[in-house]
Amino acid sequence: MSKATTRDQPTRYQQVARRVQALIDKGALKPGDRIPSIRKMSAQAGVAITTVIDGYRLLEDRGVIEARPQSGYYVRPPHMRDVVAVEAPPEPELRTVPLRAGPVRTEDNLIRHMSLDHDPQVLRIGAALPAAEFLPIAALNRILARELRVHPERANRYEVSPGLVELREQIARRMMSAGCSFGPDDVVITNGSTEAMMLALRAVAQPGDTVAVESPCYFGLLFLLRSLQLRAVEVSTDPRTGISLSAIDQLLESKSDVKALVLNPSVHNPLGCIMPDENKRHVAEQFAVRGIPIVEDDTYADLAFEGARPRCIQSFDPAGNVMLCGSFSKTLTPGYRVGWIVAGPRQQEIHAMKLATTLGCVTPVQMAVARFLSSGGFDHHLRRMRRIYQEQLCLLSHAVFEHFPAGTRATRPAGGHILWVELPEGMDSRQLEALALAKQVSITPGPLFSVRGRYVNFLRLNAALPWTPAVQAAVRTVGQLAQTLT
Amino acid sequence: MSKATTRDQPTRYQQVARRVQALIDKGALKPGDRIPSIRKMSAQAGVAITTVIDGYRLLEDRGVIEARPQSGYYVRPPHMRDVVAVEAPPEPELRTVPLRAGPVRTEDNLIRHMSLDHDPQVLRIGAALPAAEFLPIAALNRILARELRVHPERANRYEVSPGLVELREQIARRMMSAGCSFGPDDVVITNGSTEAMMLALRAVAQPGDTVAVESPCYFGLLFLLRSLQLRAVEVSTDPRTGISLSAIDQLLESKSDVKALVLNPSVHNPLGCIMPDENKRHVAEQFAVRGIPIVEDDTYADLAFEGARPRCIQSFDPAGNVMLCGSFSKTLTPGYRVGWIVAGPRQQEIHAMKLATTLGCVTPVQMAVARFLSSGGFDHHLRRMRRIYQEQLCLLSHAVFEHFPAGTRATRPAGGHILWVELPEGMDSRQLEALALAKQVSITPGPLFSVRGRYVNFLRLNAALPWTPAVQAAVRTVGQLAQTLT
Repeated sequence: MSKATTRDQPTRYQQVARRVQALIDKGALKPGDRIPSIRKMSAQAGVAITTVIDGYRLLEDRGVIEARPQSGYYVRPPHMRDVVAVEAPPEPELRTVPLRAGPVRTEDNLIRHMSLDHDPQVLRIGAALPAAEFLPIAALNRILARELRVHPERANRYEVSPGLVELREQIARRMMSAGCSFGPDDVVITNGSTEAMMLALRAVAQPGDTVAVESPCYFGLLFLLRSLQLRAVEVSTDPRTGISLSAIDQLLESKSDVKALVLNPSVHNPLGCIMPDENKRHVAEQFAVRGIPIVEDDTYADLAFEGARPRCIQSFDPAGNVMLCGSFSKTLTPGYRVGWIVAGPRQQEIHAMKLATTLGCVTPVQMAVARFLSSGGFDHHLRRMRRIYQEQLCLLSHAVFEHFPAGTRATRPAGGHILWVELPEGMDSRQLEALALAKQVSITPGPLFSVRGRYVNFLRLNAALPWTPAVQAAVRTVGQLAQTLT
Repeated sequence: MSKATTRDQPTRYQQVARRVQALIDKGALKPGDRIPSIRKMSAQAGVAITTVIDGYRLLEDRGVIEARPQSGYYVRPPHMRDVVAVEAPPEPELRTVPLRAGPVRTEDNLIRHMSLDHDPQVLRIGAALPAAEFLPIAALNRILARELRVHPERANRYEVSPGLVELREQIARRMMSAGCSFGPDDVVITNGSTEAMMLALRAVAQPGDTVAVESPCYFGLLFLLRSLQLRAVEVSTDPRTGISLSAIDQLLESKSDVKALVLNPSVHNPLGCIMPDENKRHVAEQFAVRGIPIVEDDTYADLAFEGARPRCIQSFDPAGNVMLCGSFSKTLTPGYRVGWIVAGPRQQEIHAMKLATTLGCVTPVQMAVARFLSSGGFDHHLRRMRRIYQEQLCLLSHAVFEHFPAGTRATRPAGGHILWVELPEGMDSRQLEALALAKQVSITPGPLFSVRGRYVNFLRLNAALPWTPAVQAAVRTVGQLAQTLT
């Protein structure tokens, strides 16, 4: 009986949401208009403040209104929702790359792109940096300051590996939605996911060994492999479905002595794709059978746009053959450098390695992230972030369609904020990079994402910048410069 | 003329200091008495608040008074100053160890000691942890909170390797007093000195290579060597003057293929000694001539008791053969994990390695330490810390003399807060450790400090704990338990 009531009659906060929606539908509130303040609405509708907050949050989650810090709630401008994919470039096709192991090629400008060492005058539209506007910086800083006040001594003590237990608990809890079922004791906190990947690779490969990577893959991984003196074999990866199963099968049949597979299966950098669950299961099983470990980079998975949170490959591998590496750098803040690793039976070895090489991570930032996660609001923040990124990817994709040479292709990312753009065959993105830099705009050229300098006619663009006239102009400039390439 | 005036007539703040000193000398203020508050003294003496503060600081630096947080200034109790060294144990003698390379022996309890993974009921008097009471935690936390408030976005941005320039500037400036003359661009910020040492070792040695270490040396170094799969050769080290020059010469003549020497020359852990400058020069020159790099651990050098700040070996090596590793973990706060490395011509390689393996360090704590250093007060804090540690080492040493078996020896540290105790030959500190643990007290047994489990009859004690009745009782307990060893 009470269920039926709940279903048929909207609750109070839903009524608040409907009331605002009706005003918008009737045109009483127009895009960009400020909607009544929480206090005002509470008085008008005769409901509690918290009811109004819940109602507004519902509208925010639906993408109808948006909160602007220190200002209030506004009806969202329509262009953010109504960009249609019909005017977007076609998607890049799968490129088949030969399975050949070798040292990681040194790109001269790799260290420059890694170190973000750019002229401040240059607008970087290729670096995968989330803009401060989209991160919960104010809340995080407030929480960190509070932790310092409430636990001054604790914040100054060593928090040696495996790291703050409260944080490990929160991570274990959150990752249940990714199909994982590890506990706090299985987690080691790291200095971002980069250190997590480093520890994982050091645990299973020696200098001179070969590991398999996706093609293309994040250039930071290639830089890491080079630093660890590891060789790499590139495996064909589909811009829609991730690593190619036939290429994987071929690799495993080839008897090549691969020590590990490094995989970024859920919201790939730079492809933006998510491997279907059946593919994840297949890869997990094939590698588990052969005892070849998988290193899973889960950094962007929380930024998947549609449906449930993607499952980790780790969740298809009960035996612990997958070492799962996560991070809050793209979802909360890059500055705190909080990452983690879950390594199954290799947990003790990774813990000892972390202890031996850095003792542990910075205490106060672990406390702040743990508190942020436990106090709720992370999922709400993620929903907002995903919605903004999805819209901005639409806008960016449309701008590429409009300004780049005919025949240009671009991914349709399933999450994250990265667009992978394919220029017509024969064009060189490094040449484009040089031309753009002369106009104070930087892009990330494709060859950085390959062991052997492939993807010469590809580039990466970032949609995690506010879509300002300056950014729009920069994208247009790069497109026009691309038109001059031959 | 004005100079003469300055010399002959005390300035106002000196007058304030004299006034208080006179009250103490006359017995009007007794040890433990609270002295007039700053405000009161300002009114009484008719001088500015800041003048009183300067005067009190002068007395504090002289060890006449002490500040107690939220309480005021007090005349220091005499026992803290008047402990005499005559009732202290004799010093341990140099032990000659054979120059033999081999793998680092695995002590079962090494990981336990590294991870500080102890029962909270247990009083740890062996771990080299500075007590919160002696660290400027309140000031640091306040500065960090302020940085978050003033630079909210900056604190949340990546601060990729080489790290925050303001911090690197402060380090370069400070290290001038250690005879160094490097610039901010020569510094790479690391996650404590442990990561600095790791990067240095990875830059010059491959798995299977051998490095030379002092005997005894910090067990964390041995744990690191083991993690990097490096072999070690122990070099005899004198408890008064550091590494033995004749042993060094022997090592260099032996044509053993040593890839590096790791040295802790200024306030050694666990010996507490400082190498004389001429020894430092000799070692620096001998290794530079042969092109064998030195990794210098400078962690405790700021805690030297007498005279000027010890010179770094790096300062005797203009060619950059020495890689210098520093840290603020023992002088400011362990929780922030701020360390650094200066690596001469290997700086670019170390920078690339840091970038590849962790991207960079946590931003807000770098900002806080940089601000703490630039705002002054670090030297004042160091003076206070050194005075306390020196006194507490005297008290601890005296207690060892009083309670430990006849024939026990102990170092006379030239800095830091660590006492290295030698029990009579035949006694086993691991046995003592077990007995003490049963009484809820933990010590650090000697064999941890050796590649091959030497120093069975040695143990390490920590004087950076407030000299409370509980700590005194714990030391007495350990001494009495040692009496039962045979």
